[in-house]
Amino acid sequence: MITIEPLHVAAGARARDRQARLTKPPGSLGVLEDVSVQLAGISGQCPPPVPTRPVIGVFAGDHGVLAQGVSPWPAEVTAQMVANFSAQGAVINALGRQIGATVQVIDVGVATDIPGPAGHESRTVRRGTADLSQEPAMSRAEAEEAFEVGREVAGTAVAAGADCLLTGDMGIGNTTPSAALVAVLAGVDPDEVTGLGTGSSEIRSRKVAVIRAALERHRPDPTDPIGVLAAVGGLEHAALAGFIIGAAEARVPVLLDGVIACSSALVAAALAPNVTGYLIAGHRGCEPGLVKALGLLGLRPLLDLDLRLGEGSGAALAFPLVQAAARVLAEVATFDGAGIDA
Amino acid sequence: MITIEPLHVAAGARARDRQARLTKPPGSLGVLEDVSVQLAGISGQCPPPVPTRPVIGVFAGDHGVLAQGVSPWPAEVTAQMVANFSAQGAVINALGRQIGATVQVIDVGVATDIPGPAGHESRTVRRGTADLSQEPAMSRAEAEEAFEVGREVAGTAVAAGADCLLTGDMGIGNTTPSAALVAVLAGVDPDEVTGLGTGSSEIRSRKVAVIRAALERHRPDPTDPIGVLAAVGGLEHAALAGFIIGAAEARVPVLLDGVIACSSALVAAALAPNVTGYLIAGHRGCEPGLVKALGLLGLRPLLDLDLRLGEGSGAALAFPLVQAAARVLAEVATFDGAGIDA
Repeated sequence: MITIEPLHVAAGARARDRQARLTKPPGSLGVLEDVSVQLAGISGQCPPPVPTRPVIGVFAGDHGVLAQGVSPWPAEVTAQMVANFSAQGAVINALGRQIGATVQVIDVGVATDIPGPAGHESRTVRRGTADLSQEPAMSRAEAEEAFEVGREVAGTAVAAGADCLLTGDMGIGNTTPSAALVAVLAGVDPDEVTGLGTGSSEIRSRKVAVIRAALERHRPDPTDPIGVLAAVGGLEHAALAGFIIGAAEARVPVLLDGVIACSSALVAAALAPNVTGYLIAGHRGCEPGLVKALGLLGLRPLLDLDLRLGEGSGAALAFPLVQAAARVLAEVATFDGAGIDA
Repeated sequence: MITIEPLHVAAGARARDRQARLTKPPGSLGVLEDVSVQLAGISGQCPPPVPTRPVIGVFAGDHGVLAQGVSPWPAEVTAQMVANFSAQGAVINALGRQIGATVQVIDVGVATDIPGPAGHESRTVRRGTADLSQEPAMSRAEAEEAFEVGREVAGTAVAAGADCLLTGDMGIGNTTPSAALVAVLAGVDPDEVTGLGTGSSEIRSRKVAVIRAALERHRPDPTDPIGVLAAVGGLEHAALAGFIIGAAEARVPVLLDGVIACSSALVAAALAPNVTGYLIAGHRGCEPGLVKALGLLGLRPLLDLDLRLGEGSGAALAFPLVQAAARVLAEVATFDGAGIDA
């Protein structure tokens, strides 16, 4: 049972009104004014609190579809990168330090052994999905279990004081299930929403063929989001959908990274349409599936820097803009207060 | 005599090489990788230092051309906003606090009395420009004097420890001289580079006519940048051109805000072409003159959020991205170091 309250309309309206009275030309902070109104609606307060305790949930999993040659990287790199996160050596660690975030790494489906001292949480649902081009990626029960892991991680983080959740991911091959999820939930041909990921145009063509074959075989029903996850998703996608839902249930904003997060957000929105009010898109990225998902979710991303890394990097880079949006509404003088001729 | 050293090629090359060895897909941090290479070239170090002591130079001036109805705001608002800066009540104060910046406000040409306790520096060259549609905005000597004020402010800030300079401005009516500067230095018709500023489309048409008349009257010579400033510029534009030059002379990066800064940067680049290597564009904004100037300067802006405020807001919002670019290069593990299958 998912219960997500709609945004607080009156607080949003007060924020819109207050923006118009700040000592600046009306509307001159562009997209950031919309973010401030959204934050007021989420928190029910005007001005909304400035988020200062961000948590980046990095969910890791592997993908049986890698056997079809959909990535230039071997599956072992997922485990090696989880170890790199634990050693604080990855990009998301550096970006997390910069924004004062906790980077929480959760293994929901890594296939190979993770080397070195563990800095992650083991919440393994299964050790990698099945090859979705041959059989369902996972069972319905496994999709539900991974979903509940993500949801619980979000709820626990907020209960411990997190005031903004950022999505992160690690999973070699995970742009293929992302594109499959978007194709199903947007009702479009895979070719329209499949990008290069970290590979070549030859690999891209292979991904399109693989996803088409999978959709032909499983015929996932877009009105059954958990069924879609089970058929063509990934374990980290299921967990991220739960993480996003959990954040909205706890009334904190969710800052989305790239195509893995946004395809998972489509699943979340199909389960509970109210979730979209809690979403902020970090960046536009290079993946056509991301652009499609952003459009369906009605989100305008804060950054457009040709990022294609994942890990949560685009969300972490955008976080200071969310803080700035809230801070301006809280701290800037009004025309009345400053004695300026409006 | 302006002496700006070219960027350090070897340090830039080492940065490019190091980016390729970090534990992430090559190129996956997009524009931020280019910024890190630029910072290495500026500092001569790889990895370059992460900037932590930003100074926002906010130069204020008034504009005689306001008599032609080129803004919906009265000139008094320039002085009132300078007072608002001193009272820490403006957007740039809030954004400055967020990034840990010093906001330094310098009056180079405010026309009316600045109310309240002064938190700014008085470096008045003259109390507002003349109406550029009727006579030159200022004398050549005044343009040079304002230029030297900005240059000195930059040099002093860097000597005191500033490691990144951000451009800010305040001046009711200053999008008109900005468009005029871009039109002259880009060699295009004013209609192509004149935007709404904070006004209406009717005001925009008036601005175009006023600038055309001014160019017809003064026929400024684009190969004489100080002469162009004197004919159709503003006192804050002259100071900003000097500030930008001063930063580059001191080998620190300059983060540019919007059309006022970028039109001033065109002047700086006409005086000393090497300056462009030190420039980072904060945001794209809404002004066509800004887009034109960015193109001429070869800059890709870091943000595109429909900002049209000025004050330095777009530069301040972009600053954490510059820090992130440097931090990633300094802190992220390499494939060799992390034992990952590259």
